[in-house]
Amino acid sequence: MSSSNDVTLYHWEPNANSGKPMLTLIEKGVAFNSHYLDLLSFDQHKPDYLAINPMGTIPAMTHSGRLLNESTAMMEYVEEAFPGPSMMPEDPVDRWRVRWWMKYLDQWLCPSFSMIGWSIFIGPQVRARDPEELKAAIDRIPLPERRTAWRKAIYGLFSEAELAESTRRVKLGITKLEEALGQRAYLGSDQYSLADINCFNSAYGLPSMQPDDVNDAKTPNIMRWLRAIARRPAVRETWAYSRVPRFAERIIPLIEEAA
Amino acid sequence: MSSSNDVTLYHWEPNANSGKPMLTLIEKGVAFNSHYLDLLSFDQHKPDYLAINPMGTIPAMTHSGRLLNESTAMMEYVEEAFPGPSMMPEDPVDRWRVRWWMKYLDQWLCPSFSMIGWSIFIGPQVRARDPEELKAAIDRIPLPERRTAWRKAIYGLFSEAELAESTRRVKLGITKLEEALGQRAYLGSDQYSLADINCFNSAYGLPSMQPDDVNDAKTPNIMRWLRAIARRPAVRETWAYSRVPRFAERIIPLIEEAA
Repeated sequence: MSSSNDVTLYHWEPNANSGKPMLTLIEKGVAFNSHYLDLLSFDQHKPDYLAINPMGTIPAMTHSGRLLNESTAMMEYVEEAFPGPSMMPEDPVDRWRVRWWMKYLDQWLCPSFSMIGWSIFIGPQVRARDPEELKAAIDRIPLPERRTAWRKAIYGLFSEAELAESTRRVKLGITKLEEALGQRAYLGSDQYSLADINCFNSAYGLPSMQPDDVNDAKTPNIMRWLRAIARRPAVRETWAYSRVPRFAERIIPLIEEAA
Repeated sequence: MSSSNDVTLYHWEPNANSGKPMLTLIEKGVAFNSHYLDLLSFDQHKPDYLAINPMGTIPAMTHSGRLLNESTAMMEYVEEAFPGPSMMPEDPVDRWRVRWWMKYLDQWLCPSFSMIGWSIFIGPQVRARDPEELKAAIDRIPLPERRTAWRKAIYGLFSEAELAESTRRVKLGITKLEEALGQRAYLGSDQYSLADINCFNSAYGLPSMQPDDVNDAKTPNIMRWLRAIARRPAVRETWAYSRVPRFAERIIPLIEEAA
């Protein structure tokens, strides 16, 4: 067990990947220094940050000077390196189920959420910027496959087939989540765990973004699960790190009052 | 800790994904029943097996009647559910590094190995089969995205750009492995771990498949690491499950005598 006064979390908005280690730290009661990076200003590819995290990805964390990145591996690190309430079940089969879900989310479902989010919300915002500045920002991205992915996201170059496949995956993912949460209170077992933290950070917007697919009539188990997690004090504390004006005040009613 | 007399491993050849849980079981001294499935006859999509593992993926495992699939999550399960030598380091940063490598391998490097392997070796063999039988086999694949992936693999439909990207990733992966193994004896720390088991099962063929890139002069650390693992009794025991005639006798000299 380590002392926590030397933890710095490098994060963007407290959702998706950045929200995963942040909510885990807060659930465990680990104090940390917050270092906000603006993903949409490409702060993550600037020399100061590359000196800390050469991968140029967000989130990352330093603990006693050692770098940790990759958000799911970071969550397991936080779980194992610090005291506080356990975010992993005890039973090995339940632990396997937690990791099964994290693999499914990281490799399959969340990239589809992300493609749709970029296509609808973020891409159009970013494209409104100065073209020369954008080009320079893209040229600075260290990993070539990330450069390709960002170029597609920024200029809206996802093909119709890619977007259709992402839409299919999100709909199937919603069905799978509803089914799993009909069997157990949480994804891995009846205990809240890293799998729920992982999923919630990408799924809390579903009732507002896809109200025809996620609502009390069609997906009562997802709604119960979303509300149970949204009411946790650690989630409220996590959302306070948002720089979106009145973020928590706007998102909470969309979860609590979904029809 | 559980008794091990009720473990059945469903596997193909003891390499890539099938080799990961198998070598872990053997390293830990866990007895298991072997159930060989022929991937190239699409045994994994036949009703008998879908009744056991509805995902239709290999490997899978049952333990006391409970299903476990997804090879990396299975390895963590075997590590945690059974006694025997530990395949995870103690230190949380080393454990993070093990998981960092497994993520990198599973999501980035090994799919590139796999695409090249299918393109050069496996696709041409499979395409020689009866076309009607092949079509029926593809139609039986339960997950649509796996159906698409298999169709591309079977009929050689990978684009030049996809193959070039995979080739780039493999070359970069070799550089990264050599660098990492210059810093530590094994990938996660100086202790042999799940990360090494994961990687070795896809990398043992590198000196024979890419002798210009992986050899004693260019990648001495990879060669030292490959030889150390290839000499482990558990690896020899794993390779005995191969149905390729004289598999171990043929592969060992290619690792030991690489120039």
